[in-house]
Amino acid sequence: MLNKDIFSRLLQQRQFKSVRSILDVMNAVDIASLLSELDGKELALVFRLIPKAKAAEVFANLNSAMQSYLVEMFSEKELRELLDDLYMDDTVDILEELPANLVTRILAAISPENRNVINKLLNYPEDSAGSIMTTEYVDLKPGWTAAQSMEHIKKTGIHKETIYTCYVTNQRKLVGIVSAKDLMTADDGALIQDLMETEIISVTTHTDQENVTHIFRKYDFIALPVLDADGLLVGIVTFDDVMDVLVAEATEDITKMAAVAPSEKTYFETSAFAHAKRRIPWLLLLMFSSIITGTIITDYENAFAAIPLLVSFIPMLMDTGGNCGSQSATLVIRGLALEEIRFRDFFRVIWKEFKISLIVGIILAAANGVRIFLMYQDVALALVIAFSLVSTVIISKLIGCILPLLAKRVGLDPAIMASPLITTLVDTCSIIIYFNFATKIFAL
Amino acid sequence: MLNKDIFSRLLQQRQFKSVRSILDVMNAVDIASLLSELDGKELALVFRLIPKAKAAEVFANLNSAMQSYLVEMFSEKELRELLDDLYMDDTVDILEELPANLVTRILAAISPENRNVINKLLNYPEDSAGSIMTTEYVDLKPGWTAAQSMEHIKKTGIHKETIYTCYVTNQRKLVGIVSAKDLMTADDGALIQDLMETEIISVTTHTDQENVTHIFRKYDFIALPVLDADGLLVGIVTFDDVMDVLVAEATEDITKMAAVAPSEKTYFETSAFAHAKRRIPWLLLLMFSSIITGTIITDYENAFAAIPLLVSFIPMLMDTGGNCGSQSATLVIRGLALEEIRFRDFFRVIWKEFKISLIVGIILAAANGVRIFLMYQDVALALVIAFSLVSTVIISKLIGCILPLLAKRVGLDPAIMASPLITTLVDTCSIIIYFNFATKIFAL
Repeated sequence: MLNKDIFSRLLQQRQFKSVRSILDVMNAVDIASLLSELDGKELALVFRLIPKAKAAEVFANLNSAMQSYLVEMFSEKELRELLDDLYMDDTVDILEELPANLVTRILAAISPENRNVINKLLNYPEDSAGSIMTTEYVDLKPGWTAAQSMEHIKKTGIHKETIYTCYVTNQRKLVGIVSAKDLMTADDGALIQDLMETEIISVTTHTDQENVTHIFRKYDFIALPVLDADGLLVGIVTFDDVMDVLVAEATEDITKMAAVAPSEKTYFETSAFAHAKRRIPWLLLLMFSSIITGTIITDYENAFAAIPLLVSFIPMLMDTGGNCGSQSATLVIRGLALEEIRFRDFFRVIWKEFKISLIVGIILAAANGVRIFLMYQDVALALVIAFSLVSTVIISKLIGCILPLLAKRVGLDPAIMASPLITTLVDTCSIIIYFNFATKIFAL
Repeated sequence: MLNKDIFSRLLQQRQFKSVRSILDVMNAVDIASLLSELDGKELALVFRLIPKAKAAEVFANLNSAMQSYLVEMFSEKELRELLDDLYMDDTVDILEELPANLVTRILAAISPENRNVINKLLNYPEDSAGSIMTTEYVDLKPGWTAAQSMEHIKKTGIHKETIYTCYVTNQRKLVGIVSAKDLMTADDGALIQDLMETEIISVTTHTDQENVTHIFRKYDFIALPVLDADGLLVGIVTFDDVMDVLVAEATEDITKMAAVAPSEKTYFETSAFAHAKRRIPWLLLLMFSSIITGTIITDYENAFAAIPLLVSFIPMLMDTGGNCGSQSATLVIRGLALEEIRFRDFFRVIWKEFKISLIVGIILAAANGVRIFLMYQDVALALVIAFSLVSTVIISKLIGCILPLLAKRVGLDPAIMASPLITTLVDTCSIIIYFNFATKIFAL
């Protein structure tokens, strides 16, 4: 990629011809990141030097502050030209981020029919297939030949986001799918109705975007048709948007699993205050929950007044329980997200975790029992810790796997049942188990 | 999708014509999941009824146990036909999972030149671009016209995994890229050298697959060229494999962050024993680390012997510290994975987390201080807890953000610096802070 200093120097020397020829060979995404280093005045200047064929793609890749700035600078004519070249789904993404006055200005510059489409797209629920689809696709008729279809694509294809999957419709009803590969390798005279696949996999505008990603991953599609409530074709979702959804959904899960309210902004885009706001609610809840554990400890005041050493094992038991629980919870949450685990596997998961926790518990207990016997030559203490460990591990792993499954069942996001919540719950259990064993074995 | 009972009944009644026509309209991926419900004998029977054009794709979508079974059943001729239709990268994926005797049989059935290619692909490091690329792509020459190129694709395209990005080479050196869209919308006589883009974004065979995903997400590519050490074109990575990598990398990070050694198998594919093996090492390490915290507690035996109530705040402080630390660690780890945070942001991240921890710490301390004052009417205790909370939150968040950044710096995976490890470290800090404040303020 181009050295930014060279580019700035050319700009200052007003070598516009060189600037233009550099922009000519550069990739639109790289131009966008180059522009992000320029100040306002230079930005507008350089943007106008970008070859027209690339300008819309560069614009779609700018951040919303820069998009706002440019929209304010543009004449009506420039704005209209830009909007003509933007894909519908990109226009919608841009509108969702811009301040209201600029949204009004953009909607005014768009042709009435496109305005209708965009208003519809803006109204689909967040995270639905409708909200990530584009309305531009190649539309073929069953009776056309391959050559006719290729001719149609040549005429109309430039303005479609993907021409690689073509949709065969009959009165807006989707009747078949032909790939560009089929068209390109078919005989000129072959009829679309003979080339097309009729086993159609589609979603509706209200399908959750996470389900859309499952379908893409399963079938390796480039694009997926989206039908409205009446079964008519209204748009397509393309693979590039699905990649973004895949990453966004994983980030959302990871964030929730760490007891942080998710956000669509990046780490640095979020202010310290906004970060704090997203972290405090869970922390407060968890803090007050762990007070319960503390209160339970005071019930056993006599026990640790008699044997103060007992207190020193609290962190080890609590941490081990928390870690065991979060291991199980995490694997189950991820399995649910990828649809490798379903609610109907409830008892299979519990049985598996029970077996795992037996193995894990016995090994941890043995390791610790030996250590305690060697350090303190106290068989009773070694037994208390060993029994407490095995029970804690089993209960933690069971809580860890059951809660996400139950969350899924009642329609909550399993990701909120991750480490922090499990840890707090498991703490209480491990303390109760521990002091019960201790008071019994030491007869306190 | 087809009801499995109907399908089984047709099979039992030996209605092969109906079976064949059902298989004819079904998607290859769906046929594969239908086959996974059949037993061995039926499997081989149905597989032979699948239309030849789809058989290879169905085979690639079967699990490795079923692939092994079929390979053992196939005649040499059947095996050779199947291998001819399989894409190179799928063949390599299959070989990586099959037992050695079948691998030998398959390699023997492959033509010598393909065998060379496959052996090379098998030798690329795991997680490299070379290991996920395919060697089949459309190769055009700069001097050809669009029409000539389309003719070339028509002849050779069926055996290429994607024909939508075509590569213009000169003595195997990549000189330009033309999309099928450009070809389909260009004039017949237009020359490839005028149509092609010459600003080429590529990777090498040894590029880490995670970097490959960053490039796909940034540029929305369908395919990305892979060059060897001499800069010659050796293959392409396609978007569908990148989607799988995106999901696999997120799963790997999530698993590591929960202190579980990652695996490529799903939850149910992994035996209880294998699960335990992947969870025990970290648990043992963390368990013994938390013994340090326990030992430190015993140093303050006199303190909680004098005021037993002090013990009851240990879980609350430890949990809050652990949660704060894991919030910061998780956001930084994810930011690093998505390249939204880099090591050069070290001080920016620390400064941001410091500001956040001040806000969070003060709010948590205030909430808890008020509660303690109301419950126990003890100002000194309220102060000890408030001071301990603020300090614990600040230190936890700093440890939480610094460790993943340092791990990145020294080439470790930041994901191992997640909740469990942070929690253990933070525990020790919070206990020391707490008892220091307590012994000072209560003059113990």
